[in-house]
Amino acid sequence: MAKIDLNCDMGESFSQYVLGNDEEMMQYITSANIACGYHGGDPHVMRKTVKLAKEYDVKIGAHPGFPDLLGFGRRDMAATASEVKDYVTYQMGALREFARAEDIQLQHCKPHGALFMKAMRDRDLARTILEAVHEADPNMVVFSLARSEVYEEAQKMGVPVAKEAYADREHTKEGSIVMTRKGSAIEDYDKMAERVVRIVTEGRVITNEGEDVKLEAETVCIHGDTPGAPKLAKTITEALQSANVDITSVKG
Amino acid sequence: MAKIDLNCDMGESFSQYVLGNDEEMMQYITSANIACGYHGGDPHVMRKTVKLAKEYDVKIGAHPGFPDLLGFGRRDMAATASEVKDYVTYQMGALREFARAEDIQLQHCKPHGALFMKAMRDRDLARTILEAVHEADPNMVVFSLARSEVYEEAQKMGVPVAKEAYADREHTKEGSIVMTRKGSAIEDYDKMAERVVRIVTEGRVITNEGEDVKLEAETVCIHGDTPGAPKLAKTITEALQSANVDITSVKG
Amino acid sequence: MAKIDLNCDMGESFSQYVLGNDEEMMQYITSANIACGYHGGDPHVMRKTVKLAKEYDVKIGAHPGFPDLLGFGRRDMAATASEVKDYVTYQMGALREFARAEDIQLQHCKPHGALFMKAMRDRDLARTILEAVHEADPNMVVFSLARSEVYEEAQKMGVPVAKEAYADREHTKEGSIVMTRKGSAIEDYDKMAERVVRIVTEGRVITNEGEDVKLEAETVCIHGDTPGAPKLAKTITEALQSANVDITSVKG
Amino acid sequence: MAKIDLNCDMGESFSQYVLGNDEEMMQYITSANIACGYHGGDPHVMRKTVKLAKEYDVKIGAHPGFPDLLGFGRRDMAATASEVKDYVTYQMGALREFARAEDIQLQHCKPHGALFMKAMRDRDLARTILEAVHEADPNMVVFSLARSEVYEEAQKMGVPVAKEAYADREHTKEGSIVMTRKGSAIEDYDKMAERVVRIVTEGRVITNEGEDVKLEAETVCIHGDTPGAPKLAKTITEALQSANVDITSVKG
Repeated sequence: MAKIDLNCDMGESFSQYVLGNDEEMMQYITSANIACGYHGGDPHVMRKTVKLAKEYDVKIGAHPGFPDLLGFGRRDMAATASEVKDYVTYQMGALREFARAEDIQLQHCKPHGALFMKAMRDRDLARTILEAVHEADPNMVVFSLARSEVYEEAQKMGVPVAKEAYADREHTKEGSIVMTRKGSAIEDYDKMAERVVRIVTEGRVITNEGEDVKLEAETVCIHGDTPGAPKLAKTITEALQSANVDITSVKG
Repeated sequence: MAKIDLNCDMGESFSQYVLGNDEEMMQYITSANIACGYHGGDPHVMRKTVKLAKEYDVKIGAHPGFPDLLGFGRRDMAATASEVKDYVTYQMGALREFARAEDIQLQHCKPHGALFMKAMRDRDLARTILEAVHEADPNMVVFSLARSEVYEEAQKMGVPVAKEAYADREHTKEGSIVMTRKGSAIEDYDKMAERVVRIVTEGRVITNEGEDVKLEAETVCIHGDTPGAPKLAKTITEALQSANVDITSVKG
Repeated sequence: MAKIDLNCDMGESFSQYVLGNDEEMMQYITSANIACGYHGGDPHVMRKTVKLAKEYDVKIGAHPGFPDLLGFGRRDMAATASEVKDYVTYQMGALREFARAEDIQLQHCKPHGALFMKAMRDRDLARTILEAVHEADPNMVVFSLARSEVYEEAQKMGVPVAKEAYADREHTKEGSIVMTRKGSAIEDYDKMAERVVRIVTEGRVITNEGEDVKLEAETVCIHGDTPGAPKLAKTITEALQSANVDITSVKG
Repeated sequence: MAKIDLNCDMGESFSQYVLGNDEEMMQYITSANIACGYHGGDPHVMRKTVKLAKEYDVKIGAHPGFPDLLGFGRRDMAATASEVKDYVTYQMGALREFARAEDIQLQHCKPHGALFMKAMRDRDLARTILEAVHEADPNMVVFSLARSEVYEEAQKMGVPVAKEAYADREHTKEGSIVMTRKGSAIEDYDKMAERVVRIVTEGRVITNEGEDVKLEAETVCIHGDTPGAPKLAKTITEALQSANVDITSVKG
């Protein structure tokens, strides 16, 4: 029986600002990537989100980003690998303390935005993030595109890693994703759900250029900060269930 | 044989800005209160300071403050007790991850500046900080003035607490301290050292108003951000050694 | 013919976070209080909001707050009067540069949240804010409760000041307002509109304790960050028009 | 008679953190580039530095940087040209308000660190910064390397621009500078002073690779955040005076 983890970025609200549909999304996903205060999120939101995940029996992971609240962590920064390691350790530890207070563990780590994209292609940065994760907990899983520096280095270093695909972003022939939110976003939920089912059951996807390529995934990301996200998550869940796919966390 | 812990605020440098004499002070103290990025310090400085403390075999503790870098955490903020609990958990966790990377433990927690002073007199805040510490680790020690809400509540809640006095600040009759740096600062190192010895060996101190009162202390704070701090620390250390006092961390 | 200015806090969005209904509210108000990046807002939002106000022919003013993005400027901070003066000058100048780029002037200054409330009761703070405004432009109008330190000091110092009332907050017998958003909020738009009309045409209001008291106002604030705000603004506008009140900016 | 402006980065202290030797340097320079709170500096430091410059009759300019206090503005950020324009307008306006309070004008604008270096080679960014400066004041001078996108675009746009060289950094054959502080720093003050004199009087410099090339400069930057900076400034000043060079601000 095929199985898949569904992950979603969570806890990105900040101060008086609300972002995403966290509680609704918790019903559908199995892994929550929780913001740690650098690109979004704050200590209050972190505690609340950890509690919410626990309540819905969703596994949690750190979602560290560049220290760029003003740009929501979506802008590349010329920080050194060593600086980034310190940022990841800091953010992961902060989240972990809220997890401990709720008596749960961090399952995974998924870097956010520009940090995620940069780590995919920069070997030094990839290694440094993997080191930070490994030092924190050798069993912690890193979420990564399958064809990336992070994936390759994780294999070499013995850091658990889960291949990730995207429900609401286009994939390129090279195994990367098209991050632009507008334009390339697919609006047809059924089509997106079908795509996820095909990735999970056949290991294949149609790229942004229309080519049919191999794409393996152990976890699929659904972005939660668009109004229709919960409906998309529901559609995907139902399609996966119809296809007899077991929706379960990467460590489940 | 009398014994005492010597503590110092550490890791308060930030970005390109250097504050304090951390490496020199490490030679003399037994407990380092490490800033966690809210009032001072940053992830790079935190990792470096944790390593430095390990190298000098100095015990480490979290030194969380209000989120007020612009005011160095020295200004009271009308944050709710619940908000403060989240801030303490966040900062403590961040530091703890650096400690784990070096395979050492957090011994203690000492709130910084305005947060420290407010917790001393505000019962709700005191409880909330103690809860955050207790949830993180029931063995973690809180540093507190002996006559304070923190001390009283810690006793009730079963949270380990160490009574603190100050080497370079005046004490009031009520057991508080005069935080103003200028004016009330004693400039005579021998006199400060003598005062520390008397607190440790006799449990008494002359207050800012000249009265001779009881003052018990398990740990004495030496502020590290004045040019002469290492010399003061050396003078105190020698005076304590001459008086046959064992200088050892609170858990030592 | 009676006349009144309608003001609204604007430009409080930040980074990816959207707050308020700025464009809708612009249709109804005559003065926009624009956040300056300390409690909310950012440079991009500021430029956009200034342009929007110009497009709708709405007068603009600075809405400076405490440097507390995490608390949205709603928490009192023990900053000195001198520190606050520097914060106000900084924020006002930043906004003013965007105004200059659009070739418009700052009409007024209205401190935000905890800074507003504190200035109303603290004479030193009131004076310091008035000094900052006066140094920037002797013709700039300060918005203030009529019975407050700001109002009294402005009169003494010759700083133009406009008496402010609130459409969606209760007033106390002492001329202050009840800032709590929940509970004390009046949900009945017609009733709120009626209240505004009565303040403007009769100079009287029913307090939170049911007493009928004098309350003069030259400007009325409508908070824009609740879903129904544009509808409330519309209701108030229509009620004022029916009562033959001229809705015009304080300098109009 | 040859003439030259001497500029120095100023007001980069922040909160409790002191950086640079501002008051000492003011004795020697003619133009102060004042940090605006994004990479360094804060409102209190800004007011103080503006007053200091006025006292020493030194012209002032804005020194805007990327919003990266943690990296002191020395790390490139993938901000869009439009975002950078907003940041420059914001920071310039904030500083300008402090200048107005002292009844003085902003003479110039010199971007800081990574923003400066990026603008030199990125045409869009160069234009956007020049637009922000031009909108603020058509007479404001931009400091720029002579062989750069900023210089070229400024010429096209009619924005006043002053060619800049560096007293304490090596120049490359291409007219750029070697920003690394360690290693490439020249420690011999007399040699640095000689170099400045030759740039000013002969319009030539020996590059980091030993080649003798043309280098025109209307202003020379002396970095103020090294312990010996005031001594270097003094040495340069005396060497220029001996060479009969008039030390005067670009608008002097």
